[in-house]
Amino acid sequence: MAGNFGDRMCQAVKAKSTPLVVGIDPVYSRLPVQIREHRAMNDENDIGAAVDAVFDFCTKVIRIVAPLVPAVKINIAYFEKYLWEGVETYYSLISEADALGVETIGDVKRGDIGHSAASYAKAHLENPEFADMEDIITPDAITINGFAGTDGILPFADVANDQGKGVFVWVRASNPSAAEIQDFADASGRKMYEVLADQVGLIAAQPKRLGAEGYSNVGMVVGGTAPEATKMLRTKFPNVWFLVPGYGSQGATASDCLRFCNDDGLGALINASRSIIYAYEKDQYKEQFGDNWEKCIEQATIDAKIEIANAM
Amino acid sequence: MAGNFGDRMCQAVKAKSTPLVVGIDPVYSRLPVQIREHRAMNDENDIGAAVDAVFDFCTKVIRIVAPLVPAVKINIAYFEKYLWEGVETYYSLISEADALGVETIGDVKRGDIGHSAASYAKAHLENPEFADMEDIITPDAITINGFAGTDGILPFADVANDQGKGVFVWVRASNPSAAEIQDFADASGRKMYEVLADQVGLIAAQPKRLGAEGYSNVGMVVGGTAPEATKMLRTKFPNVWFLVPGYGSQGATASDCLRFCNDDGLGALINASRSIIYAYEKDQYKEQFGDNWEKCIEQATIDAKIEIANAM
Repeated sequence: MAGNFGDRMCQAVKAKSTPLVVGIDPVYSRLPVQIREHRAMNDENDIGAAVDAVFDFCTKVIRIVAPLVPAVKINIAYFEKYLWEGVETYYSLISEADALGVETIGDVKRGDIGHSAASYAKAHLENPEFADMEDIITPDAITINGFAGTDGILPFADVANDQGKGVFVWVRASNPSAAEIQDFADASGRKMYEVLADQVGLIAAQPKRLGAEGYSNVGMVVGGTAPEATKMLRTKFPNVWFLVPGYGSQGATASDCLRFCNDDGLGALINASRSIIYAYEKDQYKEQFGDNWEKCIEQATIDAKIEIANAM
Repeated sequence: MAGNFGDRMCQAVKAKSTPLVVGIDPVYSRLPVQIREHRAMNDENDIGAAVDAVFDFCTKVIRIVAPLVPAVKINIAYFEKYLWEGVETYYSLISEADALGVETIGDVKRGDIGHSAASYAKAHLENPEFADMEDIITPDAITINGFAGTDGILPFADVANDQGKGVFVWVRASNPSAAEIQDFADASGRKMYEVLADQVGLIAAQPKRLGAEGYSNVGMVVGGTAPEATKMLRTKFPNVWFLVPGYGSQGATASDCLRFCNDDGLGALINASRSIIYAYEKDQYKEQFGDNWEKCIEQATIDAKIEIANAM
């Protein structure tokens, strides 16, 4: 893992000619019936069969999308529900994705202070030095929760620096109730998420975090459904990568999301999860490809790339 | 797991005559030398030996403190650094502690929205229904991060209700930089953490969450080092349990923490972690008990109980 994460994202986005990132949120009941039937039990309560099916599905999805997109975002919440067997599957999948040449973002949203934050950072960003774990690596970047302020962000950012990796601090969420907390404003109209963004921006702009292309290895997660937030953040933090959820199933349009890009088309990663990985549930793809679920996913990825390119 | 978590905490605090909770934050290099030497390798990079030593230490600590305190708080950050083997150790330890008759709080600080929050809630609060996992249970309560507002809190609170368990929402942290974000104030002087506390308080006061003793299964984590926050929160939310970190190593006094109690002495859990579980590093206990590290931990627990009782 060489160099600066901000630089690697520039190269990856240019190489694939798209800022589209595919989010991996596997839900057993929505897996293709061929994957579930292939298992002896087809029973989510058989934990071994369930994680095997999830791993099988996710590796196939990543093989399809790896040639098409710069990065995949893997959400550990959908693996933790299978307890430690799910966590092993998560790390195995990160390692598989890495081997396929795509950047990996672990959507783990960890956040704490002091020693606890440092322990999480080690778990999620340091490549393991344990014997018998030579094949396991951690993601190229993770999402974190910055609620505790600078003290809670630096332990992650510093491990990211040591390891040539990145972090994305969750600054503005895409859910309806996020505004109650994150848009809370002072007498001047300045909002809470702007205060948090300023702290992240100060850390991101430290020279040791900037790559040759001018981007930092410390970025922000900002929902595509809050476009009013976008222009201000993009202008104020030119060297930050934004990871933008909400495109596709959550209702943000390609244009909403693209406001996060700099003039050179870099600086934003547009994430789509369910609208791509479950494309085989949609009539438009079923009619075209029948029960070839892999073709449905491939076409949905291509269609999303085209939609984003047209909006650019 | 019967009844309401708020009620169970009342019974547990009365039974042990103390609001003291012992926090389990195991750091390999600080484990007693007898535990590390007992392992063949004494090598943290042998993951099996490391998690065995951590499990051995933690179960011994819990056996010492279980007769003395109402609850233990186990911080998953210190287990995740050992990847899935650490996560298995965490769940095993929760199950061991439960069998010893002490309430268990999983300090996991998970937070996300929608389906992701629901998946985390399932992982951390639902007792597993997987075959071959009959011996594994999840904690009586967990800590969560409420940054996404009501949408991000309800998925956890609702699983807690279904399972007879509890959640503590992180409302005000005990670290120095927390104030930058959490004390951010509007024109009237109202602070961001108060907005979050109001949302948590509304959820906590829903009748279905209240037990016979009048306490809710939805509580708040509020740092003992922010005593100015305390009196207002206690008065405003009489039916909420506060989980108060910061006593001991982080600098809050017993009196600071006890401001969180109601007049009946209930309603607050005062957490001490490092000052108790590493008591054998302190001269005062080494002089008294030599290398009997277990006696050091037992005495430190008793001393903390006395200090809190005297301050009451």
